[in-house]
Amino acid sequence: MNNSFGNILKITIFGASHSEELGVVLDGVPAGVGLCVEDFASDLERRRPQSKGETPRHEADEPIIEGVDAEGVTTGESVTIKFRNTNCKSGDYSHLRLHPRPSHADLTQRAKYGEEYNLAGGGMASGRMTVALVAAGVVAKKLLGGYRFSTRLISVGATTDESMFEAVVAEARAKGDSVGGVVECRVSGVERGLGEPFFHSVESVISHLVFSIPGVKGIEFGDGFEGAKRCGSERNDLIIDDEGKTHTNNEGGINGGIANGNDIVVRVAVKPTPSIATAQSTYNFASNTIEPLTIGGRHDACIARRAMVVVEAMVAFALADLTLQKDGNA
Amino acid sequence: MNNSFGNILKITIFGASHSEELGVVLDGVPAGVGLCVEDFASDLERRRPQSKGETPRHEADEPIIEGVDAEGVTTGESVTIKFRNTNCKSGDYSHLRLHPRPSHADLTQRAKYGEEYNLAGGGMASGRMTVALVAAGVVAKKLLGGYRFSTRLISVGATTDESMFEAVVAEARAKGDSVGGVVECRVSGVERGLGEPFFHSVESVISHLVFSIPGVKGIEFGDGFEGAKRCGSERNDLIIDDEGKTHTNNEGGINGGIANGNDIVVRVAVKPTPSIATAQSTYNFASNTIEPLTIGGRHDACIARRAMVVVEAMVAFALADLTLQKDGNA
Amino acid sequence: MNNSFGNILKITIFGASHSEELGVVLDGVPAGVGLCVEDFASDLERRRPQSKGETPRHEADEPIIEGVDAEGVTTGESVTIKFRNTNCKSGDYSHLRLHPRPSHADLTQRAKYGEEYNLAGGGMASGRMTVALVAAGVVAKKLLGGYRFSTRLISVGATTDESMFEAVVAEARAKGDSVGGVVECRVSGVERGLGEPFFHSVESVISHLVFSIPGVKGIEFGDGFEGAKRCGSERNDLIIDDEGKTHTNNEGGINGGIANGNDIVVRVAVKPTPSIATAQSTYNFASNTIEPLTIGGRHDACIARRAMVVVEAMVAFALADLTLQKDGNA
Amino acid sequence: MNNSFGNILKITIFGASHSEELGVVLDGVPAGVGLCVEDFASDLERRRPQSKGETPRHEADEPIIEGVDAEGVTTGESVTIKFRNTNCKSGDYSHLRLHPRPSHADLTQRAKYGEEYNLAGGGMASGRMTVALVAAGVVAKKLLGGYRFSTRLISVGATTDESMFEAVVAEARAKGDSVGGVVECRVSGVERGLGEPFFHSVESVISHLVFSIPGVKGIEFGDGFEGAKRCGSERNDLIIDDEGKTHTNNEGGINGGIANGNDIVVRVAVKPTPSIATAQSTYNFASNTIEPLTIGGRHDACIARRAMVVVEAMVAFALADLTLQKDGNA
Repeated sequence: MNNSFGNILKITIFGASHSEELGVVLDGVPAGVGLCVEDFASDLERRRPQSKGETPRHEADEPIIEGVDAEGVTTGESVTIKFRNTNCKSGDYSHLRLHPRPSHADLTQRAKYGEEYNLAGGGMASGRMTVALVAAGVVAKKLLGGYRFSTRLISVGATTDESMFEAVVAEARAKGDSVGGVVECRVSGVERGLGEPFFHSVESVISHLVFSIPGVKGIEFGDGFEGAKRCGSERNDLIIDDEGKTHTNNEGGINGGIANGNDIVVRVAVKPTPSIATAQSTYNFASNTIEPLTIGGRHDACIARRAMVVVEAMVAFALADLTLQKDGNA
Repeated sequence: MNNSFGNILKITIFGASHSEELGVVLDGVPAGVGLCVEDFASDLERRRPQSKGETPRHEADEPIIEGVDAEGVTTGESVTIKFRNTNCKSGDYSHLRLHPRPSHADLTQRAKYGEEYNLAGGGMASGRMTVALVAAGVVAKKLLGGYRFSTRLISVGATTDESMFEAVVAEARAKGDSVGGVVECRVSGVERGLGEPFFHSVESVISHLVFSIPGVKGIEFGDGFEGAKRCGSERNDLIIDDEGKTHTNNEGGINGGIANGNDIVVRVAVKPTPSIATAQSTYNFASNTIEPLTIGGRHDACIARRAMVVVEAMVAFALADLTLQKDGNA
Repeated sequence: MNNSFGNILKITIFGASHSEELGVVLDGVPAGVGLCVEDFASDLERRRPQSKGETPRHEADEPIIEGVDAEGVTTGESVTIKFRNTNCKSGDYSHLRLHPRPSHADLTQRAKYGEEYNLAGGGMASGRMTVALVAAGVVAKKLLGGYRFSTRLISVGATTDESMFEAVVAEARAKGDSVGGVVECRVSGVERGLGEPFFHSVESVISHLVFSIPGVKGIEFGDGFEGAKRCGSERNDLIIDDEGKTHTNNEGGINGGIANGNDIVVRVAVKPTPSIATAQSTYNFASNTIEPLTIGGRHDACIARRAMVVVEAMVAFALADLTLQKDGNA
Repeated sequence: MNNSFGNILKITIFGASHSEELGVVLDGVPAGVGLCVEDFASDLERRRPQSKGETPRHEADEPIIEGVDAEGVTTGESVTIKFRNTNCKSGDYSHLRLHPRPSHADLTQRAKYGEEYNLAGGGMASGRMTVALVAAGVVAKKLLGGYRFSTRLISVGATTDESMFEAVVAEARAKGDSVGGVVECRVSGVERGLGEPFFHSVESVISHLVFSIPGVKGIEFGDGFEGAKRCGSERNDLIIDDEGKTHTNNEGGINGGIANGNDIVVRVAVKPTPSIATAQSTYNFASNTIEPLTIGGRHDACIARRAMVVVEAMVAFALADLTLQKDGNA
């Protein structure tokens, strides 16, 4: 596995779902950034199950911070944020390598790493690892003074009516089913000039990181797929002042791969979690037949809700790395 | 600028729209791959203007291949594919830094690189550079024996009726306008196990490269944004045989970041080109007022058509790099 | 700080001298490698103070291994090896930022990271971190089946007479002084074809990693500096069989950056540790005068002895990463 | 092959000894740097054969510069410097894959890339490619305003008496032999704080690049191997002012991997070229016996002389990349 990314600001995640601890090493964090446990509380809370319908695993998620001095300020050394796994019954998941959950990584991990390994709790390829991504996002946002992030759900299942979201999730849960959703993240205060015309466009770096989040199947910037239906004359963002502010923002704040200073607007499609209570007829590699699979335990009926803060974290990380590169490379 | 990407297979593009020549250096191409001028003909042709409505610049686009032996076989050395720029009048584009085209990179390049540089022809951030991406794709597809690529337009402007595509483009052209479109690329024969659970998921690497193509504003895999509207019970891909073949393919051939052997399905939103003949009222940095801008010359009325082969090239490059990594890292 | 390196096999070190724990994350370790605590014992022992004259800090150095399955076999996930810091009195080292030890990193860390940070124990830039490098080397050697490593001191201070080494160190220690030494690492069984002609030559990758070891000031391959005094006719390694075996090995097993299958021979110059008991007259940034500095505590009189296993670890890591790249890229 | 290196400033070399042209792509060069043909003249001249005893291939080596604007100033785009190969008779070198030159890359290239490829002129792994490295060095030095480079030979063969160097070379040439030499490069005006404590120490990055130069077998910083013979008390560099100036400079301007502002001092061992006129008895893979090999043509009797400017170029490139990273990452 390759669990690292970044150019000047680098992220490496470590540990696994059922190991003693898991976390993230961040290289390239400048000296002088104050970091304390409280800084992480809000974003970690946003990632937690928000209602009784969601996953029953409850972790304290108390971050342990290394790489700060006695006053809690970064020193230029690498920063490590780690979390103990306290609530992990080391259940036997090996049957899922033989009878893989549909639309789940069980199948591909079996193909890639072999079926012989007895991974506790699904090992590293687990939603549990997103706690490390959220922690990285908290640090990244600290580096982006003046940026404001606003992230929300714009649809749950087939509805875009926010007042219905809770009901749609409740209905899915009651049926032993799950629903997808779309997350929108807006960033204002973005420095103009971030990004590159080609292989390191703002869209390239953000999408690379966002597709690291389990369950993401699509991403668009500005008017995205809707914009592809339009004409240039109705879609072009007319520039209205010498700061480059535009009358509309169909480009989502990015022209030719480079941030133009208007809000960056990203929308992310999150699939319904494949782990559902309803039995599913799918191939069993042990018996060599298609058989009903029933997945025990309780699961999030709508992972898009908890994905919001993870999307925000990955967008922030991308912008922070691009910012440090721009400073070096303008 | 940073014009390189890739881990084992590396791409570096060089040159610019109006330099003597432009092209691509590919590091990591194994020895023993036959490469001749004819190999490039078909894909280069797909990138050319397909009708009279499109850009008037006609380049011969004859590839010059370096890094092969006397028999035309790669030797393990880096491979360079370059193209002469023969049809470039070195026009003065400097007024576009002062009166930037809306939704175009003029604005952001001005912010990033400064307004003082007199780039001929828009310099490197030009659609002309995609000829280098197409050439890289040809080599990548050579490395992916047994993979089959099928790429088509699934919508043009607001229509998904293929029989109407030509008419929609013609209408936009007649009005001095442009339309967007959606490109779908399907890849069959994909080796199971490519990709990583986190930062180097198949979706991450493909999207990183596809967002290097000018004009791309969205990407989705499998049922993508549509899937986010659905329930898990109706969307999950039931596995039907011991090869991991699935009854449906809503995942687009990728589970948990790793290819599952079913067809990879990618859809890409391409915006209407911002260069349109109709005058647009937009800020002029010279006069400090909003003034009509008229863009001379003729332009593609629908760049999505020429983008098809470029999307295919970037998907192929991503899969080729992941394949070489998997061989080293399984 | 940037504490990561590697292409397919990646190393990231984390923690610091006086943090709760420190260690290494290794990405790219293939599935199927058995790893247990005992595997690390011998190399960790080689790194420990070997006599009473050396550093008084005694750590248990019990490795905690994550990323293996219930049977202790790697799964393809990242592997983390970490160590608790148990014996660290969090002393105040801040005076050393004001009155920096000569030839020590105190001076440059002050310049790079600022003097305001109150790093306990020198923070990350500490010889303590080499325990993580040694652990990485143990894993790398596991990946290099059939390779044999032989590492020894060939000089201590001015003497090359092995029987005198202990006496030379004892004398330096008695005087409150330190001595340097030269480490030689030989590797047999090396696969031909590792490495690249230019930027990733075997020498490039080994030297990059070896110069990550504190105290290293020189490296040579084969006859190195001695070879620069010779004539081609006396130095050329005549090839004597169809395996490429050579009569002599002045090239140290590498031609044109690529391993030729003969033993790789590396010699590394390790400076005398700058931390000596004798008072030294050096600049004090607090008083702005040159003043005697006396460094308390006890220190290794010859760090070259403990550096042996660290050099071997870095050579092994370089060869393991090149091996994984070659498999993907031959 | 992997012919790229660098983090913010990136080098990619392309072409080969006998291709139409060869050169270097530099990514990450900031906008605003003036670059003209004359800037390259002096360093290219230093690389040329300096006397009749050296290689008979004479190339005009006129650089063609791309990536500058009409006024010859970089624009932030990638910069390409290329050279036509005009004087290359495409001789048949294939016999050297069968009867490899001792201590030459013939043997290892055969092992790595196979013997079947008919590389004209030795292909990419040729001293000819160093012209691209020199060009990169010219640009790097432009980015390092205020740095002064001083590079000289300090020994030729066994002599360190500069007045004898010419005679030693002449004698070797007369005998159909070659001699090695040691190059010393000193850099003054270096910014304090460049480099990292571990994997990206100044020594790591410089050595990585310097070992990309054909014929280099050793490198040391400051007193290097000599320092390993000494005691700490006699070797430590006492700090004498508040700029960190030291009384001696045994550390070669680098403490703990980070530049301390004193002169950087690098010494590089260059082997005698293995291509000598005298017949050598070495294995012939065609006849499967050891047979005399006579190498035709004329060759440099002392490649260390031409290596000076290449060493300087690689040291400059390393410092320029570290400088751009420091700006982004201090």
